[in-house]
Amino acid sequence: MAGSQFGKIFHISTFGESHGKALGVVVDGCPAGLSLSEEDIQEMLERRRPGKNLKMTQRKEGDKVEILSGIFDGKTTGTPIAMVVWNEDQRSKDYGGIAHAFRPGHADYGFFAKYGFRDYRGGGRSSGRETIARVAAGAIAKKMLLELGVSVRAKVIELAGISLTESREKAELLAEQKILSLREQGDSAGGVVECLVEGLPAGIGEPVFDKLDASLAKAVMSIGAVKSVEIGDGIEASKSLGSENNDAFFLKQEQGFDSFMGSLQKGSNHAGGILGGMSDGSTIRIRAGFKPTPSISKEQQTVNEAGEAITIAIKGRHDPTVVERANVVVEAMTALTVLDALLENLSARLDYVKKAYQK
Amino acid sequence: MAGSQFGKIFHISTFGESHGKALGVVVDGCPAGLSLSEEDIQEMLERRRPGKNLKMTQRKEGDKVEILSGIFDGKTTGTPIAMVVWNEDQRSKDYGGIAHAFRPGHADYGFFAKYGFRDYRGGGRSSGRETIARVAAGAIAKKMLLELGVSVRAKVIELAGISLTESREKAELLAEQKILSLREQGDSAGGVVECLVEGLPAGIGEPVFDKLDASLAKAVMSIGAVKSVEIGDGIEASKSLGSENNDAFFLKQEQGFDSFMGSLQKGSNHAGGILGGMSDGSTIRIRAGFKPTPSISKEQQTVNEAGEAITIAIKGRHDPTVVERANVVVEAMTALTVLDALLENLSARLDYVKKAYQK
Amino acid sequence: MAGSQFGKIFHISTFGESHGKALGVVVDGCPAGLSLSEEDIQEMLERRRPGKNLKMTQRKEGDKVEILSGIFDGKTTGTPIAMVVWNEDQRSKDYGGIAHAFRPGHADYGFFAKYGFRDYRGGGRSSGRETIARVAAGAIAKKMLLELGVSVRAKVIELAGISLTESREKAELLAEQKILSLREQGDSAGGVVECLVEGLPAGIGEPVFDKLDASLAKAVMSIGAVKSVEIGDGIEASKSLGSENNDAFFLKQEQGFDSFMGSLQKGSNHAGGILGGMSDGSTIRIRAGFKPTPSISKEQQTVNEAGEAITIAIKGRHDPTVVERANVVVEAMTALTVLDALLENLSARLDYVKKAYQK
Amino acid sequence: MAGSQFGKIFHISTFGESHGKALGVVVDGCPAGLSLSEEDIQEMLERRRPGKNLKMTQRKEGDKVEILSGIFDGKTTGTPIAMVVWNEDQRSKDYGGIAHAFRPGHADYGFFAKYGFRDYRGGGRSSGRETIARVAAGAIAKKMLLELGVSVRAKVIELAGISLTESREKAELLAEQKILSLREQGDSAGGVVECLVEGLPAGIGEPVFDKLDASLAKAVMSIGAVKSVEIGDGIEASKSLGSENNDAFFLKQEQGFDSFMGSLQKGSNHAGGILGGMSDGSTIRIRAGFKPTPSISKEQQTVNEAGEAITIAIKGRHDPTVVERANVVVEAMTALTVLDALLENLSARLDYVKKAYQK
Repeated sequence: MAGSQFGKIFHISTFGESHGKALGVVVDGCPAGLSLSEEDIQEMLERRRPGKNLKMTQRKEGDKVEILSGIFDGKTTGTPIAMVVWNEDQRSKDYGGIAHAFRPGHADYGFFAKYGFRDYRGGGRSSGRETIARVAAGAIAKKMLLELGVSVRAKVIELAGISLTESREKAELLAEQKILSLREQGDSAGGVVECLVEGLPAGIGEPVFDKLDASLAKAVMSIGAVKSVEIGDGIEASKSLGSENNDAFFLKQEQGFDSFMGSLQKGSNHAGGILGGMSDGSTIRIRAGFKPTPSISKEQQTVNEAGEAITIAIKGRHDPTVVERANVVVEAMTALTVLDALLENLSARLDYVKKAYQK
Repeated sequence: MAGSQFGKIFHISTFGESHGKALGVVVDGCPAGLSLSEEDIQEMLERRRPGKNLKMTQRKEGDKVEILSGIFDGKTTGTPIAMVVWNEDQRSKDYGGIAHAFRPGHADYGFFAKYGFRDYRGGGRSSGRETIARVAAGAIAKKMLLELGVSVRAKVIELAGISLTESREKAELLAEQKILSLREQGDSAGGVVECLVEGLPAGIGEPVFDKLDASLAKAVMSIGAVKSVEIGDGIEASKSLGSENNDAFFLKQEQGFDSFMGSLQKGSNHAGGILGGMSDGSTIRIRAGFKPTPSISKEQQTVNEAGEAITIAIKGRHDPTVVERANVVVEAMTALTVLDALLENLSARLDYVKKAYQK
Repeated sequence: MAGSQFGKIFHISTFGESHGKALGVVVDGCPAGLSLSEEDIQEMLERRRPGKNLKMTQRKEGDKVEILSGIFDGKTTGTPIAMVVWNEDQRSKDYGGIAHAFRPGHADYGFFAKYGFRDYRGGGRSSGRETIARVAAGAIAKKMLLELGVSVRAKVIELAGISLTESREKAELLAEQKILSLREQGDSAGGVVECLVEGLPAGIGEPVFDKLDASLAKAVMSIGAVKSVEIGDGIEASKSLGSENNDAFFLKQEQGFDSFMGSLQKGSNHAGGILGGMSDGSTIRIRAGFKPTPSISKEQQTVNEAGEAITIAIKGRHDPTVVERANVVVEAMTALTVLDALLENLSARLDYVKKAYQK
Repeated sequence: MAGSQFGKIFHISTFGESHGKALGVVVDGCPAGLSLSEEDIQEMLERRRPGKNLKMTQRKEGDKVEILSGIFDGKTTGTPIAMVVWNEDQRSKDYGGIAHAFRPGHADYGFFAKYGFRDYRGGGRSSGRETIARVAAGAIAKKMLLELGVSVRAKVIELAGISLTESREKAELLAEQKILSLREQGDSAGGVVECLVEGLPAGIGEPVFDKLDASLAKAVMSIGAVKSVEIGDGIEASKSLGSENNDAFFLKQEQGFDSFMGSLQKGSNHAGGILGGMSDGSTIRIRAGFKPTPSISKEQQTVNEAGEAITIAIKGRHDPTVVERANVVVEAMTALTVLDALLENLSARLDYVKKAYQK
């Protein structure tokens, strides 16, 4: 229950505020025998760090992960893996008027209405730093998926309204210029991240409520700032005809036919690799649309906790977009979802269960 | 676990195949004291029936719900409410070649890959009839939400690529003509359903993984044929600027300021009523994009269970679109999600808990 | 959540009141491919029927199970299996003063305090008939366990204070006489049921909170009238010394040593087959102590819903003991627990997961 | 899933091995607004420390808890509370032959069979140090229960076979002498802990599988070394008659009758405060029987990971009994269970839900 848990078999429980002592996660249900080190986690954490290029903030976060449990002789033991990342700077800043203002587009008012008060330091639990725990857990899921032949990779395909799918290099330059110009204006932009899953066998996902696409939708929509989720052709499928949108099935010629799983291929992939909530053996394709980051230095109307109408301008080194840092988070959430579905599928057939317990 | 369950506190467990004996649902966790009769359920079930207008199939389904438990003296008792709808026609039809073919766009191949065999009669568990159980449970959730001052209503806003948001009457006529023409061509179309939730207090939804929008995304994406989910401005938010997309907060003038919850309003609602995963007191707005129904009578390439490449044309009285029947399903899934979040929120604050147990 | 669900992977959701239309259960998460018919269920249901010998009530229940879903061509399909047993006699009886009295030893007061009102007909949801759903689901679990080489069997080992473990035939006669005499006096008795699980491999159960013995304790304590649960030597272990209570390990001579699982045996089994919450490869031994049935025709002091102190005597054909009908319920709950643990264990090791997805 | 989680609404996820970096717990679902400091936790942790009297080991554990998140301005915020206790001594000791031996009465063989290898240092996850996380979380639950007028307290009532319920002072002395003598012999003893819950309103607990006694049974049986659980008269109830075991209801004279909850009392409490799985307003009484600690220095027969029959004697400063340190663990598990049931009960009635959302 509550809200900081994810996954059924590969279960994670995250914690930590932006300006508290630490952020972290406990992974319960990780199969034993996976080689795992702090470097494996660190590598993925580096990819979510800001300050990697011009348009990003220069904050030096230096997030170093520390594994507290669940590893012995370099391998997962099957018991919970706890990981923490310490916050370097916990000094109480002067938040001034913003501390008690409900910033437009932020979670402030929701927290206040829900809990009666809130940790206003840096957004508390709704800060972007919360995603550190997602990425740390996702790094384990990704590594385990690789052992099973499944890869997960996300990239930005649209930034500040500019599509990056064609002539990417040129388009990226254009987008970067737009972002820099928005920063000068004290404004911000959104974008779209696409994530691909390769190598997943057919039949993964549960037929009714826990469809693979439904679980992915929740996973990705739970990332702050995401406002749309699409599978395969997504919103375009609603305008298409059945004869256009259906993907024809063909036999894979190179394969024999002893085992059926994986012996089919499709002529197209409008479905994004999921039919009836189950994988169909082709590439899973999911897209997440991010809204522009709400922290802007332009003046905005709002209200504070004292019930006064006020005007605020959010100063500081805020990113004019979170999208470039968010793709690794999309990857992490996708990996967590797909691995969980693979583990859940282990009990789908009696003959699988028998095979597992045969000597 | 498994896939036919939904909800944490207001939990449902559904069952039944298209051509089995019955479809149904067990609702566990419904608060005691709600007036409830079979008519309350039946009314909502009628809204999902086909054959209500020209473009729909003329199958007479006549789905009558029967409540088996959980009601005493016309009220819910707090114990599980089981409901069944009997399938009138369970005769084994001649499914011909289709029985063992993997229909493009359908769940057939996924079921086969997952379980090793499948109930081919009418799509089994992936049939549209599965939604009967969702609607029956959703009818209870909707009625309870009304008692709490919350209303849920969905409507089709785009059909066969034609927007119905402006000059609706004319647009509907146009869409209907397009649908009829597609039927003649043996083709099908998709559309978009929008659902609005009014009256929800601020602060509902859990901050991190169980954000209200994330849970809604899963709920709605779990409906067969949905390929996109949007909250508020959705996909458009990704192209917008922060200064455009942020909704300013204002005080509600007519209200005093004793209780904060509900005392704010927003100048716009790009966010669709959800910020940081929690309701912000304004209208919740969610959109589901449906793909065209995959059952078309045009010829398609596929493969059968024997591993032979074949051509099929799916005959029978199939709807050229499911969208007009699906809006009640979107409503049901939204109601189930919102009620569950409201119940989960009961333990958010110690002072609420104290109040509940005070004499 | 709520209370009428059990199991994580092999999940059941039960419903129905003693005098409502029907009792039943939905099993979600049953692996596909198990041969299953209504006869398989009926056989186990017969074992819980009253009226089988002198000391039991002569009520003719004739509970016939009907499977509504989840079976195709005689096999489980992997989708939910719904089962119902119709109540033959739903006529509203004259419950007289008892309807609104809080019967001592019964759940009446709890229901009233919890829900504000209650279904007083025959105990509603707390009636012994509720166990029909447990037994129906347990029958499936037992059959699947047999396919995996695991057997579950319970028997009464103490009745009305008389131990049946030695010279059983004579002791049973003695106990039967005592029960008949108690019936004449309008009194009742309890007893103890022991359940044995054979063939379970070592390592089943999760190390910390979901220990196999902890899950079994909950499963068995959830049966109405159970007031104690013991594993292995149980309460006697508390009085024993470490040197007496520890079970020494030995090698099984007949076995080679390629696979370790199952290659050890123990010189004694004080532990009841569970160490550290995991099975150790020897027989699982669990005991449930039942209190005397609270429905007695002797006069008792109590209070009614109007807040009046009253005296009641519960007339009718009540069993002076439920123990002889309860052993099949203990068996069912044990089977459900053990199967769930076996399925959960499928994801314990990466090499198992790899093996499952290898072609 | 997996095994290191407990609770539905007040959910905890624990981690850490005996000789790893740290032990800890994440509490997700703690209501906002509870005053909480590290001292509150530390106080309860001190009660589980060894070395408090003669018969206990002199190890100086000095476990200091550190709260990492979820507290702001001295109060719980509603977001996850992470707590860690650092292990002071992580140096790899020389475990000698014991490292790879399956110690009788321990979890070693289960871990090995389940995961294929194990963290042999100090018992890893099955060490008594695992209970630190339970106690830390339980301290929060206990404090919140006190705010709701509910107290939880456990004590040892039998030690090394000697009852402490009468002339306690004398009996304790006797038991202590027996324990000291067992230490000299290299042997160990068990005992029984009783836990009382006062102030719980009637109606708490869910009627069927999640009965309050069933949940308590699981909670307490999940503590290492517990082999029996009894509610109220427990095992004695099985030998008693209905007329003796039923508790008569009476009106509380001092109370008016406006609210029914809490207006009844019972003439006796054989039931231990729970009827039909729900609290009845009287004192909850639960007993846990502990086996003798399996670490003894007497010689024992066993087998090692190499498959060799060996003899071992477990040297080191092991407690000859864990019972005196375990009562605080029983208290913690009881508090976690009762609080969770109280929170779950918040959604039992529509009128409660309405009341919560009324302005």
